[in-house]
Amino acid sequence: MTTGHAGHGYLGNKDDVLKRLRRIEGQARGLQRMVEDEKYCIDILTQVSAMTKALQSVALGLLDDHLSHCVVRAAAVGGAEAEEKVREASEAIARLVRS
Amino acid sequence: MTTGHAGHGYLGNKDDVLKRLRRIEGQARGLQRMVEDEKYCIDILTQVSAMTKALQSVALGLLDDHLSHCVVRAAAVGGAEAEEKVREASEAIARLVRS
Amino acid sequence: MTTGHAGHGYLGNKDDVLKRLRRIEGQARGLQRMVEDEKYCIDILTQVSAMTKALQSVALGLLDDHLSHCVVRAAAVGGAEAEEKVREASEAIARLVRS
Amino acid sequence: MTTGHAGHGYLGNKDDVLKRLRRIEGQARGLQRMVEDEKYCIDILTQVSAMTKALQSVALGLLDDHLSHCVVRAAAVGGAEAEEKVREASEAIARLVRS
Repeated sequence: MTTGHAGHGYLGNKDDVLKRLRRIEGQARGLQRMVEDEKYCIDILTQVSAMTKALQSVALGLLDDHLSHCVVRAAAVGGAEAEEKVREASEAIARLVRS
Repeated sequence: MTTGHAGHGYLGNKDDVLKRLRRIEGQARGLQRMVEDEKYCIDILTQVSAMTKALQSVALGLLDDHLSHCVVRAAAVGGAEAEEKVREASEAIARLVRS
Repeated sequence: MTTGHAGHGYLGNKDDVLKRLRRIEGQARGLQRMVEDEKYCIDILTQVSAMTKALQSVALGLLDDHLSHCVVRAAAVGGAEAEEKVREASEAIARLVRS
Repeated sequence: MTTGHAGHGYLGNKDDVLKRLRRIEGQARGLQRMVEDEKYCIDILTQVSAMTKALQSVALGLLDDHLSHCVVRAAAVGGAEAEEKVREASEAIARLVRS
């Protein structure tokens, strides 16, 4: 039994999303070790770029699942619910593009 | 009579999109003048950032219109057409986030 | 005789920068034609992404020239002038990364 | 005694950089909890955008320190060393802008 909203788009990929996030958590720890060991700044920046790309990739996957499930389902119903879901998705996309 | 696919999401905002694109074209010409007049590099970069933000803003507007119209319409029909529209939108979002 | 600050980093590549900016101006005009001809939203978005990448590429070129010339020259002098140039460059980089 | 290259730009801010990276690691764990608890996709995406911004902010800080110290020091020496440091910094900036 879950406390969540049943039927989120990403639930079919939950294990994959969790695996990617654990890897990203590991990258954050790896960066701390690099700073503690006083590694070269440029090498640290290369790892930060890799971690940013990994995060973006998680975001794009979640967004695709969200459009495929929540937005498509709301659109099938139509009306205010569809409009609200599209508005919400567009705002999330804008935050991603601008971050 | 149009030669285009009737009913694109942005058609209701066509004049607004064209006005923004003309302003962006003007920014591109302004940048050329700055380079010809040998303005300071940092001032040129500031204008490039402003132009990039203006372009992103056009893209986010087009995408929102696309989700509200084409994707919602395809979702109401459902099936392969809905899946194809979502896949296409997700790919466009990924290109925006990564550019 | 120029009215500009003699010795900007990009001056050696002025023709190349101008050529790229003219191409970007052409992309802005091409986008207007696509909207006037009511082309498919996703195809317009693909062109916007290409134009954004072209703009970023101009920015990265200008920044590299700026670091190689203005910043290196100020650093050779040292003191407040060097600090000021680095601060200015860092702010321009932040605007690019966030745009 | 450190095993690192003495004098990296960020060493003066080492504790601050580590604190920010620990907070980012915490955000990665928070995201895993949100997925496990099946929170709403859009709320998860909002947290991903916040985490991406935090990472970018660390990167911009490291880069500013790098320019202020390593690049300025190499530029004072001049020659191939200065060119190499600028090339390396420009490549790191390009990776950040494109990620």
